[in-house]
Amino acid sequence: MDNFTFYAPTYFVFGKDTENETGKYVKRFGGTKVLIHYGGGSVVRSGLLDRVKKSLDEENIGYVELGGVKPNPRSGLVYKGIELCRKEKVDFILAVGGGSTIDSAKAIAAGVPYDGDFWDYYQGGIVNEAVPLGTVVTISAAGSEGSPDSVITKEEGMYKRATTGEALRPKFTIMNPALTQTLPAFQTACGITDIIAHLYERYLTNTKEVECTDRMIEALLLTMIHEGPRVIENPNHYDARANIMWAGMMAHNNSCGVGRTQDWTSHNIEHELSALYDCAHGAGLAVVMPAVFTYNLSHDVMRLAQVAVRVWGCQMDFYNPERTAREGIEALRSFLTSIGMPKNFEELGAKEEDIEKLAYTCCYGDVETGETGGYVRLNQKDVENIYRLMV
Amino acid sequence: MDNFTFYAPTYFVFGKDTENETGKYVKRFGGTKVLIHYGGGSVVRSGLLDRVKKSLDEENIGYVELGGVKPNPRSGLVYKGIELCRKEKVDFILAVGGGSTIDSAKAIAAGVPYDGDFWDYYQGGIVNEAVPLGTVVTISAAGSEGSPDSVITKEEGMYKRATTGEALRPKFTIMNPALTQTLPAFQTACGITDIIAHLYERYLTNTKEVECTDRMIEALLLTMIHEGPRVIENPNHYDARANIMWAGMMAHNNSCGVGRTQDWTSHNIEHELSALYDCAHGAGLAVVMPAVFTYNLSHDVMRLAQVAVRVWGCQMDFYNPERTAREGIEALRSFLTSIGMPKNFEELGAKEEDIEKLAYTCCYGDVETGETGGYVRLNQKDVENIYRLMV
Repeated sequence: MDNFTFYAPTYFVFGKDTENETGKYVKRFGGTKVLIHYGGGSVVRSGLLDRVKKSLDEENIGYVELGGVKPNPRSGLVYKGIELCRKEKVDFILAVGGGSTIDSAKAIAAGVPYDGDFWDYYQGGIVNEAVPLGTVVTISAAGSEGSPDSVITKEEGMYKRATTGEALRPKFTIMNPALTQTLPAFQTACGITDIIAHLYERYLTNTKEVECTDRMIEALLLTMIHEGPRVIENPNHYDARANIMWAGMMAHNNSCGVGRTQDWTSHNIEHELSALYDCAHGAGLAVVMPAVFTYNLSHDVMRLAQVAVRVWGCQMDFYNPERTAREGIEALRSFLTSIGMPKNFEELGAKEEDIEKLAYTCCYGDVETGETGGYVRLNQKDVENIYRLMV
Repeated sequence: MDNFTFYAPTYFVFGKDTENETGKYVKRFGGTKVLIHYGGGSVVRSGLLDRVKKSLDEENIGYVELGGVKPNPRSGLVYKGIELCRKEKVDFILAVGGGSTIDSAKAIAAGVPYDGDFWDYYQGGIVNEAVPLGTVVTISAAGSEGSPDSVITKEEGMYKRATTGEALRPKFTIMNPALTQTLPAFQTACGITDIIAHLYERYLTNTKEVECTDRMIEALLLTMIHEGPRVIENPNHYDARANIMWAGMMAHNNSCGVGRTQDWTSHNIEHELSALYDCAHGAGLAVVMPAVFTYNLSHDVMRLAQVAVRVWGCQMDFYNPERTAREGIEALRSFLTSIGMPKNFEELGAKEEDIEKLAYTCCYGDVETGETGGYVRLNQKDVENIYRLMV
């Protein structure tokens, strides 16, 4: 196991009706003037925004609002948010929504005290200073509610890039699983897929002897396999929603990813798809993951055989572990299809003729390394080959 | 799943040589005058104490020392520590040792700013104010390095009691698995047993639909089964030590115990044994757990069958799940015996003629509830019967 530090000081408030306590926690963490950041109509229509505002009113906390966050959140709204916060002297940012809203709020939080362009952070910087933020989560997916990470798409060039920094960990996170019950099945399934991807990105490691974190990742994958189909079948299953919600946070707060190298190839390759076609991140990952794992299979057959046996219930073929490993990838693909995810370029709305461009942007884009991937280093040609497996 | 809050803001510094950074972290968390609290000779002999002091010197941080913590730490030394801290105007407490030292440090930390007798907290209070503390862990066992809990034995009456409170979570914890390599095999095995007990205490729940935390607990149990025998066989196995150390922390920081009722019967029943006979806590638990689980078996056969199948690899007897459940308890007992733990009163040094007294103290003691146990409520007669199963 590698040396590491781990620090996850987010205060989690989990359960029914907990959004009514939002104001109390903003106050507890020092907020006096809040930016409420959110996406579109559902947060308004469901009455959630009103309940959150009421809880702020009850604590005499002032606020301004900025809605309009889109999936794959854009830099344009971030600049607008930074300006608004500075003008209104906002000292706390509250994200009410899913991963996109939280990531947009984190970008604003980083940008407000920073003299330069906030995008600098998304080209390789670490965020050490930010306006404190809290979240009210409405979808189990990104894990951004407990993580130090943020992903933003820059409109000029449609680059989708990530940053990180302990200053971006939310001070508190309100998690009411019931808020996710109104999500369309497709979005629920996208969230499940994103959580599964966060687990595989950590599972694919070159560090040896990491039984504890291997087992933890497997535990969270098993939870998704158990609960995923239950919420697709019955969207109002509170307990299944609750298990997915806690698993989604644990999958990405990194307690199961410490002390080991990680991969993030699937995320990097997917980001180009959702940046270009504006498809759902989770849907993109469903198409990308089996292709990446198949392409990288020979790098460590036993690792993929292990997840096949321990998670997907495959019988180990002791004479031919590769067969077991492939069976595990097929089991993942079938599971994702069964919950309504696409399985190829066509179903995703991606185009074969864009493959060269996609691979080039993935490997060069605005940060010109020419390679991607933490598990196997892949060049532009490799990435092209991987995209071709998805056609 | 039940509503809950979860907050675990300890900064973990994990890996080789990390004890040399102790001073840096004391400074980071605001300490200027430190009480170094430790047990006996091994911390001194190994040179660890000198390395820690050197790191404090390097940051120009002053310190006083208080050694002499014993296993099952006593109230007497706590009073001494409180007095010393007040006299020397200590503003940070550093525990260098295992669970006993950390728990003693927590008691001192709670007592310093408190006007009354610190023991009040151990009779049912919650600690909301304490001197900040950090830890340098030398044994994987108690999980106290990442928890808000502390257990102390009061010398008058030999009551062994626990308290809790977020103020008792360490600000930082230094975890160098190599520091545990010099432990005698018996102590290592006691630590493994304590970790397993922390997991079972959470597993035995009356809350339904807790798949995520069930799976996480199982993952950590599987880690102990994999790594335990490896460190007993080869005490210098760094990676096995490392996996046990992270699993031990995760087992008790409560991320795998949220949203569900917990048990703690085995701990309560064991505390009377280590209080009366001064046996090792882990050794006591090895004798207690199989007896408790057997006595409570019929309360929820399927729960014990589940752990038998998922963790101990038993084949499910679909016609007779109780047989599977019993097989799982036997597998636990065999495992504990295989790593050198005692299996009955005699091997532990406990006496059958004390059973009535033990059961009375457990159920009445200084807090007169007349019952114990979060999974099944047990009265004095039940507890007597459980002790008899250990003879």
